[in-house]
Amino acid sequence: MGEKLGEGKTKEVFYLDEDHVLLKFKDSVTAGDGLKKDEIEGKGVLNAQTSALFFRVLESAGIPTHYVSMKDERTMIAKKLSMIPVEVVARNIATGSIVKRLPIKEGEIFDPPIVEFFLKDDSRHDPLLNYSHMEYFKLMSRREAEEAEDMIKRAIKVLSDYINKRGLILYDLKLEFGRLKGNLVVGDEISLDSMRVRNPKGEIYDKDIYRRGEPLDKVKSKYSEFLGLMSH
Amino acid sequence: MGEKLGEGKTKEVFYLDEDHVLLKFKDSVTAGDGLKKDEIEGKGVLNAQTSALFFRVLESAGIPTHYVSMKDERTMIAKKLSMIPVEVVARNIATGSIVKRLPIKEGEIFDPPIVEFFLKDDSRHDPLLNYSHMEYFKLMSRREAEEAEDMIKRAIKVLSDYINKRGLILYDLKLEFGRLKGNLVVGDEISLDSMRVRNPKGEIYDKDIYRRGEPLDKVKSKYSEFLGLMSH
Repeated sequence: MGEKLGEGKTKEVFYLDEDHVLLKFKDSVTAGDGLKKDEIEGKGVLNAQTSALFFRVLESAGIPTHYVSMKDERTMIAKKLSMIPVEVVARNIATGSIVKRLPIKEGEIFDPPIVEFFLKDDSRHDPLLNYSHMEYFKLMSRREAEEAEDMIKRAIKVLSDYINKRGLILYDLKLEFGRLKGNLVVGDEISLDSMRVRNPKGEIYDKDIYRRGEPLDKVKSKYSEFLGLMSH
Repeated sequence: MGEKLGEGKTKEVFYLDEDHVLLKFKDSVTAGDGLKKDEIEGKGVLNAQTSALFFRVLESAGIPTHYVSMKDERTMIAKKLSMIPVEVVARNIATGSIVKRLPIKEGEIFDPPIVEFFLKDDSRHDPLLNYSHMEYFKLMSRREAEEAEDMIKRAIKVLSDYINKRGLILYDLKLEFGRLKGNLVVGDEISLDSMRVRNPKGEIYDKDIYRRGEPLDKVKSKYSEFLGLMSH
């Protein structure tokens, strides 16, 4: 691999050529702003494969992503983006932080989806941002934020339909965006670390299993089962 | 007075006629989502007078408010609005909650001002709202939120200029809006309970004196001094 350009909690980034990077998915799993951390052998492969699958689904629907192809089972070739340190979240069904923050009950349905922007800042617990903050921090212009909202609303629709057809339900989705020649492009990953998925009986498939302190092998088996279901 | 229509932490609302209410300013002062609470004799009169003055300043600048006239020294005649339970905050200079929430330092200057919307919900510590939340809660449409942003930006400019000319500095401003025949109108109050004002040496004139636990007579004397300065 080329020079290491950076490393996050779950991925390493390497130089490939002027326009491309390699994203190598690690086996680590983290929660609580990085305070809880473990290793699950093979988790990096599962998330790399899941991400590749969903990036292809988005590309097919005309939503631009950084995905190019897979170099090996846990390493993605991706277009080099200038990443924006913001998590963009779209919610179909209420769960997680929103039910603590706002007068919203677990399970409430959002139609259209609620969209939120959070600053990637573990030390401040990823605070909510509005357009005014993002303009002040020079993260996104109001026009770009509106475009990101539009893109994630299309993305959650496409992914919900895909996941529904395979018997599961997409509760919410987190995307990260970067810029390529001035245009917003979906970067990072799309996996069970960045979306919440349950079956109609409420059984959890996503990282909430880990957040709730269940055994690591249960996390892995659900991630694996999910990838199997999605691959058909 | 007519029938009491409601009571908040610092004001009582009475029926006057079909289109008007009386707002009676109480002597209470509160902080910390209502957990800290005291009485300061005469504070209601000071806030009523300060509010009347600033509502007139806004009206002169073409910004619609609920203000009609004063019935007595602590009772305002106001147009009856359908109030929106949202605090709209504009910030010229960083202080207070924003420096805890975001990577912003005390004293940073915002030009243009940062505008934020908070749900009035003491039990949840007035959480930050974005357009998407406000649409879901049917509080304000996106178009109305943009109009409220535009109105508070004009208001903070007008009030900053007015206060600057009298030797003081407006750090931030909270407004509450209501609807009258479908149009947004500034309601509630505009006082040292709802704005932060300091002199060029950093001396505090606003409710932060109370929040910091200083003696109640100091709060009153600063509120009184401020009204005197603003009245010329």
